[in-house]
Amino acid sequence: MTELTETRLSETLAHMRATAPLVQNITNFVAMNIQANVMLAAGASPAMVHSSAEAAEFAGIAQALSINIGTADPAWSGAMEAAATASVAGGKPWVLDPVAVGATGFRRTLGARLLALRPSVIRGNASEVLALAGQLRAGRGADAADSVAEAEAAATRLALQAGCTVAVTGPVDFVTDGHRAARIRNGHPMMPRVTALGCALTGLVAAFTVDQDPFRATLGALAYYGLAGEVAGRSAEGPGSFQVAFLDALHALGPNDLTAGARIEEIPA
Amino acid sequence: MTELTETRLSETLAHMRATAPLVQNITNFVAMNIQANVMLAAGASPAMVHSSAEAAEFAGIAQALSINIGTADPAWSGAMEAAATASVAGGKPWVLDPVAVGATGFRRTLGARLLALRPSVIRGNASEVLALAGQLRAGRGADAADSVAEAEAAATRLALQAGCTVAVTGPVDFVTDGHRAARIRNGHPMMPRVTALGCALTGLVAAFTVDQDPFRATLGALAYYGLAGEVAGRSAEGPGSFQVAFLDALHALGPNDLTAGARIEEIPA
Amino acid sequence: MTELTETRLSETLAHMRATAPLVQNITNFVAMNIQANVMLAAGASPAMVHSSAEAAEFAGIAQALSINIGTADPAWSGAMEAAATASVAGGKPWVLDPVAVGATGFRRTLGARLLALRPSVIRGNASEVLALAGQLRAGRGADAADSVAEAEAAATRLALQAGCTVAVTGPVDFVTDGHRAARIRNGHPMMPRVTALGCALTGLVAAFTVDQDPFRATLGALAYYGLAGEVAGRSAEGPGSFQVAFLDALHALGPNDLTAGARIEEIPA
Repeated sequence: MTELTETRLSETLAHMRATAPLVQNITNFVAMNIQANVMLAAGASPAMVHSSAEAAEFAGIAQALSINIGTADPAWSGAMEAAATASVAGGKPWVLDPVAVGATGFRRTLGARLLALRPSVIRGNASEVLALAGQLRAGRGADAADSVAEAEAAATRLALQAGCTVAVTGPVDFVTDGHRAARIRNGHPMMPRVTALGCALTGLVAAFTVDQDPFRATLGALAYYGLAGEVAGRSAEGPGSFQVAFLDALHALGPNDLTAGARIEEIPA
Repeated sequence: MTELTETRLSETLAHMRATAPLVQNITNFVAMNIQANVMLAAGASPAMVHSSAEAAEFAGIAQALSINIGTADPAWSGAMEAAATASVAGGKPWVLDPVAVGATGFRRTLGARLLALRPSVIRGNASEVLALAGQLRAGRGADAADSVAEAEAAATRLALQAGCTVAVTGPVDFVTDGHRAARIRNGHPMMPRVTALGCALTGLVAAFTVDQDPFRATLGALAYYGLAGEVAGRSAEGPGSFQVAFLDALHALGPNDLTAGARIEEIPA
Repeated sequence: MTELTETRLSETLAHMRATAPLVQNITNFVAMNIQANVMLAAGASPAMVHSSAEAAEFAGIAQALSINIGTADPAWSGAMEAAATASVAGGKPWVLDPVAVGATGFRRTLGARLLALRPSVIRGNASEVLALAGQLRAGRGADAADSVAEAEAAATRLALQAGCTVAVTGPVDFVTDGHRAARIRNGHPMMPRVTALGCALTGLVAAFTVDQDPFRATLGALAYYGLAGEVAGRSAEGPGSFQVAFLDALHALGPNDLTAGARIEEIPA
């Protein structure tokens, strides 16, 4: 547990807050507002900049980039590729969210093109990670028809092949960089009943990766996010009040709360 | 009342929840997030897929489709028509929301083209239904300048001509398929003070129509929606807390609540 | 204080509510939903209409226009210019929100083109007003890296050159038309932790300017908005509950509350 003590994970939150990194997000229309609110509540500085007229230029200003293909179209694909290329050229981290990547031919092609641009982290549900790893399944929008457990082997293979950290989120999260791996048992069953909370998490992971080890930063972001879900779940009466309490919890929770509440299980190599 | 007992209406909610249908939504940018949240809270599975690169292909995966012209533009019009055509070819229901259809020439033309693609249900306010039925009025955005009562005759004519169910929503809702008709007296005056709740209802109607009689399914969706508004109105202190309580109520209400609370008035043929 | 007594400011709210003006908004994707909800809660009638197929035509119907460049792209730029031109031709007010105008070349060019179309009011943070006034700084997305005090001189110069009212918002707001000036000390530190509240305010300013003196209308809108923030801050436990309480407060506050709570400091010419 040298790598992943709860104290070391909580340091990733403290570092993100102290940095308040400017993160460029090219995300889907459903997620834009809640993703910005999640990132602001957590202490990051989000900017939604996706036009091909400026996406690559802005990637030179931002400290990290997140790309989400949820409502991508051909006009946006070019901006996504240009921004990712600029981020890599600038030595900055970028995070890929392959929403429903197995559902249509357009998404499969776009997912493969973005994967080739070497994201630092990929965050998806089990079906998306399986699809991206080459085991295409029938997609059902952004739902996860496959379990996280089924996706663990595919995630490890994807992490090794793509040279990145892969996070499979669900009732239990699984994170690996191909050499190290861990499961996170924080979270609440109401989270998938609020749209785009997974997308918003991807933006938050990008904020955590600024000047931090991507594997550990991803674990920190996921444990913090799940813990905020647990706190929200205690007072929520449904998905409406859950979303409100979740944003409040992201704002209220600090590194000490994360040290006390993170439920990480390191998996021996 | 054989058709429309409250018990039979409540069965439409039970059926939708048991099916958790995957519904493709091509909707406007204002509505996307709240429409997804409304549908998730109610128990459906929404996917916002509108790019011309994949809209028709995705219509082959989804179980129903909703199309809303609120922020349509020429690039989206083609995707709307292709998706509607694919839905009809696949024998699946699709629902049209003709937002502010009378306001501009672009909307009038697009509305007529979509109407020709034979929606299963049209849901709009009185002004929109009047405009779509050919009685063009001066549009005022998404507001309803005309009363539901004025639109009842137009709705019946439109239902007969287009061979579909037409729902006119307002303080009292009116639903007809040209042969059967009913009014629904559920709802709350705060509902029009939260943006896009009408749009979100259109997505929910699409979810209800999967494998159900469109006329009865529409009535069930509207009564359930209005009842959730009544529940939310009891605790809300303004439009912000109303939206939160409304999502909670959509999640909490079940078929038995609908049996007890639906206020349907069947109109003799 | 003849111009700016709290009573006269509160009349701007009363007038806006009585008019319930139809305001066309060409705004960014992050802001669309919350901007519509803010305007509905306050008593205005928002319509989000931005397609080049109808933006200028709709400007002929609407009573005011707001333009926000937060997620503009080349396809939208033309619609923005056409709608602004139509508004000016129709003698109607329009309000410019130059989001992150200094951040990229595309934004600088677009900002200059829109400025030439003679907005009635410009509302931005200190960095944006400085950038638009020609003192370009490194942009950090929508954040304000510069203080309002630093921007006061630039705002006055911009107001005189562009012949409009300029509002610089921040912990203390500054409003000037080049001849008159005032500071507003209403507001709450949680406001920048909720995304797009500044954007939403721009739409509200547009509603206030209908048939009212732009300088006084802008002051009224800003004092009312800040006061709603203060009310929300009393009960909020974080940015989630703040947003909910803020919408409730916008709906609940009336002219008398504004008379009692506005904190305006007129600056001698």
